[in-house]
Amino acid sequence: MANHKNISTDLVSKISDTEGRHSLFEDASRKLTVQVCRVFLDKEGNIAPARFQASNLTLPAKNQERTEKAFPLTVARHKNVILEGRPANGQPGITGKRVAVLFSGGPAAGGHNVLAGLKAGLGKHNTLLGIKRGPKGLIQGDVFEVSGRAAQNFLNTGGFDFLGTDRTKIKSQQQFENVKETVLNNRIDGLVVVGGDDSNTNAAFIAEYLEKEGVPCSVVGIPKTIDGDMAVGKFLPISFGYDTATKVYAELVGNLTQDAASAVKYYHFVKLMGRTASKITLEVALQTKPAVTLISEEIAEKDMSIDQIVDYIVHVMIHRRLNGINHGVILIPEGLIEFIPEMKKLISELNRVLAEYETDIKDLPTLKNKQEFIYPLLSPQSAQLMASLPEEIEEMLVLDRDDHGNVKVSQIETEKLLIEKIRYKMSEVKRHTGKYFGEGEGKIPATPEQIERYKSETLSIQSHFLGYEGRSARPTAFDASFTFNLGLTAASLVLEGKTGYMAVVTEFEKGGRVLALPLSGLITTEMRKGKEEQVIEKSLVATSSPSFQVFAKCRDKWANEDLFSSPGPIQHWGPASRQMPMLVALDQSYGDYRVFNLGEEKQIDLLEMEE
Amino acid sequence: MANHKNISTDLVSKISDTEGRHSLFEDASRKLTVQVCRVFLDKEGNIAPARFQASNLTLPAKNQERTEKAFPLTVARHKNVILEGRPANGQPGITGKRVAVLFSGGPAAGGHNVLAGLKAGLGKHNTLLGIKRGPKGLIQGDVFEVSGRAAQNFLNTGGFDFLGTDRTKIKSQQQFENVKETVLNNRIDGLVVVGGDDSNTNAAFIAEYLEKEGVPCSVVGIPKTIDGDMAVGKFLPISFGYDTATKVYAELVGNLTQDAASAVKYYHFVKLMGRTASKITLEVALQTKPAVTLISEEIAEKDMSIDQIVDYIVHVMIHRRLNGINHGVILIPEGLIEFIPEMKKLISELNRVLAEYETDIKDLPTLKNKQEFIYPLLSPQSAQLMASLPEEIEEMLVLDRDDHGNVKVSQIETEKLLIEKIRYKMSEVKRHTGKYFGEGEGKIPATPEQIERYKSETLSIQSHFLGYEGRSARPTAFDASFTFNLGLTAASLVLEGKTGYMAVVTEFEKGGRVLALPLSGLITTEMRKGKEEQVIEKSLVATSSPSFQVFAKCRDKWANEDLFSSPGPIQHWGPASRQMPMLVALDQSYGDYRVFNLGEEKQIDLLEMEE
Repeated sequence: MANHKNISTDLVSKISDTEGRHSLFEDASRKLTVQVCRVFLDKEGNIAPARFQASNLTLPAKNQERTEKAFPLTVARHKNVILEGRPANGQPGITGKRVAVLFSGGPAAGGHNVLAGLKAGLGKHNTLLGIKRGPKGLIQGDVFEVSGRAAQNFLNTGGFDFLGTDRTKIKSQQQFENVKETVLNNRIDGLVVVGGDDSNTNAAFIAEYLEKEGVPCSVVGIPKTIDGDMAVGKFLPISFGYDTATKVYAELVGNLTQDAASAVKYYHFVKLMGRTASKITLEVALQTKPAVTLISEEIAEKDMSIDQIVDYIVHVMIHRRLNGINHGVILIPEGLIEFIPEMKKLISELNRVLAEYETDIKDLPTLKNKQEFIYPLLSPQSAQLMASLPEEIEEMLVLDRDDHGNVKVSQIETEKLLIEKIRYKMSEVKRHTGKYFGEGEGKIPATPEQIERYKSETLSIQSHFLGYEGRSARPTAFDASFTFNLGLTAASLVLEGKTGYMAVVTEFEKGGRVLALPLSGLITTEMRKGKEEQVIEKSLVATSSPSFQVFAKCRDKWANEDLFSSPGPIQHWGPASRQMPMLVALDQSYGDYRVFNLGEEKQIDLLEMEE
Repeated sequence: MANHKNISTDLVSKISDTEGRHSLFEDASRKLTVQVCRVFLDKEGNIAPARFQASNLTLPAKNQERTEKAFPLTVARHKNVILEGRPANGQPGITGKRVAVLFSGGPAAGGHNVLAGLKAGLGKHNTLLGIKRGPKGLIQGDVFEVSGRAAQNFLNTGGFDFLGTDRTKIKSQQQFENVKETVLNNRIDGLVVVGGDDSNTNAAFIAEYLEKEGVPCSVVGIPKTIDGDMAVGKFLPISFGYDTATKVYAELVGNLTQDAASAVKYYHFVKLMGRTASKITLEVALQTKPAVTLISEEIAEKDMSIDQIVDYIVHVMIHRRLNGINHGVILIPEGLIEFIPEMKKLISELNRVLAEYETDIKDLPTLKNKQEFIYPLLSPQSAQLMASLPEEIEEMLVLDRDDHGNVKVSQIETEKLLIEKIRYKMSEVKRHTGKYFGEGEGKIPATPEQIERYKSETLSIQSHFLGYEGRSARPTAFDASFTFNLGLTAASLVLEGKTGYMAVVTEFEKGGRVLALPLSGLITTEMRKGKEEQVIEKSLVATSSPSFQVFAKCRDKWANEDLFSSPGPIQHWGPASRQMPMLVALDQSYGDYRVFNLGEEKQIDLLEMEE
């Protein structure tokens, strides 16, 4: 091929040079600065771990009694007191410690900068270890040393691919013993768990267990999840990864709003990742101003039925079409179905019936037979609801079940359910315009020409799911700086032997405030699958929050006019590169979302960290 | 809400200020410079239309005789000669002309900069008119004047929403007469058609028609399509919109390669928009280095069957898993199915049978009955292939047909077909490792531990379709400059009364060369649905091209190792903001893809253009 007369070998080598994470963009963005909170800078401006001391802030658990029972040693030690980081001010550095880090759960942008922050915080006289494939690697003892060179190479890059990740939950006695073995075999003084609510709950249990076993290893959690459902009021405005994921989705939704107005014929239905909480959806809505945005938490609060949701969307579509707008974007949060009270009821009844009559149902040959058997066993409302669902959804409910025999709620394609019902309703309105338009009660005022034009338009729907493409993007400047400081915080905590804390950074608008929250203070008691469990409470959208209130005030305007805006692809250079989530700025009462401040801009050199 | 104690009213107004296309990014990117080719700059560096003269280059039609018959007046006038733009050098400007522009077909990034270039080229002594909703608006006479202020506001923004677009083909005598009426009623001296191959063919016919009718209106086409299938060797390296769309897709595919390596469990199957040609897929592969990339043109050339394609992918997956890599990204071009010879044959046989026995087939009650009826009427190979397809695909082939009774090829979910067959094959390999691994002919060498580890891994697939999110993005710096110059080229041509040309810009690496290609020279004769038609030939991937050759040389390495790279989100500031497509740089024998040169960087002020 080198002999091909038209190929510039110089160009070919420029292209092969990009292999293995070395695109022009990747190489340039490795060199970008990150902001470092001042508590981590010594007088010469060099990075040094902070020292933690008790603040006057406390974080009592929701159910203090149960928590004390589950975490007696941890609670006795920290007494619900939040620690605050202070500059070391020339105190001699701690040396000779070995600190291991793992990623747990789905990827989120910034994980590699947590590692870089840890490496920078530990400095050259301590050792950073990486654990491969998350909790599974912790159990199996899959541990290696992270060099400064490797950490530098992954600085500012996306994904969790340096270590990999895994979703194993450490629950059994055997698993806990394996963890202890890994800690002892590798002489680990500190364990940093980068994960979401379940992983941080796990970290709390590991901290308690190791203390009980007399193993001197501090355990610190780091709040990661794109979903944004790990947040603790003023102490932790948001978890890392949320800013990047919402900005990737907002770029694409922004492009789709623009596409809808350009092709002037499509409604784009976009389902957005984010599991239970609608926080991703709310941020994307604030960024892009789509025609309709569903927020699960509000739907649950208002006890809305599927038909009411459909009516709301159809109502918006009708009014837009009368105003000459026959296109738009509709945002649907992934977790919606579990928030619709009537669906929740149907699913719980189905789970009961399917468990009780498992063999009878299995023996029935056709779906229709199974339906005939099941319907009379449901409440009349649930039977009626089930019969009104599209056939493929009904089939899923009856036939697809998880290992516990339960309906696979997360697999239900909510957007298809809504789309099918909306198509039907819209075609009915078109066929019976006399019934819906004109004068008289409950009718929509419209001139004969408007009605004629209305009838000439058709409904074209495209559906989309945005999820995986937002988890492993290169972190935004905000997430890159936020996570670097989380790494520095965790390094400082484990060097001082603090255990059972979550490293957090807050006050994003004025240089960053570095705290350690007692993990047990975040834990509450919940019923999961009929069993009481200690878990970290998910932070959902509160309809009383400023972010929801601003959205709620604007949405009718966004529904009636085409006021979309396109926040564009994430910029890493230039005037738009220093934004934070609008939701965070609103809910934290900051003055601006267009710029964050997490300290001094620093060029990071981890090669220095090599002994 | 203003009374909500926690809401900063200042912040709320900063957020509402972004409504209606005024995000921080949109407002900042409106102010970005574009590059202007030197032929459009006068001695003071101000923008002025170029003057066109005959070059020594010609572009004879493929089938000159037929073309002359279809476009007698046009061919007689331009004699296949390509025109070249030269600086006006102080020649007096042309004034008093009225020029109309329309968008046709799917949106592509940069359309608004074509308008801005037209406005700048026409200057304050000519009038720019916009036609709403594409060819439909041209027929209906939906015309309005475009102010400098409006053009300035849309400068550098994505989408076609300023005018909207439409896919109407102007074919009937009545439609041509309506076009003439619109031209006469609005005293239009020049008509600029921004569109793909079909729209530019239409432009050629309109030019011929208006000349025949004695209407003095020049018609100029502008090459638009994200698919990249409008390209003419050295004269037109690529159409506009391709760079932006491929960069949006490459951002997302890059994120998915990173996500696959992070979650260490998924194969992401990504189907990419691009209709017939695989040019989008090829560029995205060069940018991201995925595990497998299918190129339709190669598959047709090698006469590969579906089973051979499946075997190739399974082969890659097996070798990766043996090397400890159980994840990756697979790229599939949208148009694949039509390039698989056996599928093409099946579809054409089906179209014949379904037409011939339409009523018999309709009368048969079940799918099974219909299959039993159809199978014996197909060739044995086609019957066998059809029987081997997943049930839902078979159902689609038999039941879903377009208005002409043909199979809806574009609706066939190729990726699902491949996924189903791959799952089956991979589970067979896992169940019979003895048959596939070990020593002996045709077996894959593997140690017992490798085989054990192989068996412990599972196959998880996520499928994606990327399309609409890339059409209306904010144009890349390249597309923004390219389109502005295309607008300037078209303005210059219509001011001089040149008709039946396509405005093009080439030599992207050395300041841009401005040409006008005779539209009829691009036209060839093709059989479409059994009828001979004059069409612009699509430019497909040539397996002899440098871009394909480089890909083909690298792909085994990309398959065996995890060498992906992530080109990142499109940057509009900073060191990665001046790239052009790798495919273009390779196929045009440029020295670099990392920087383009289309002339002088200029801040554009269209408010000056107001009289």
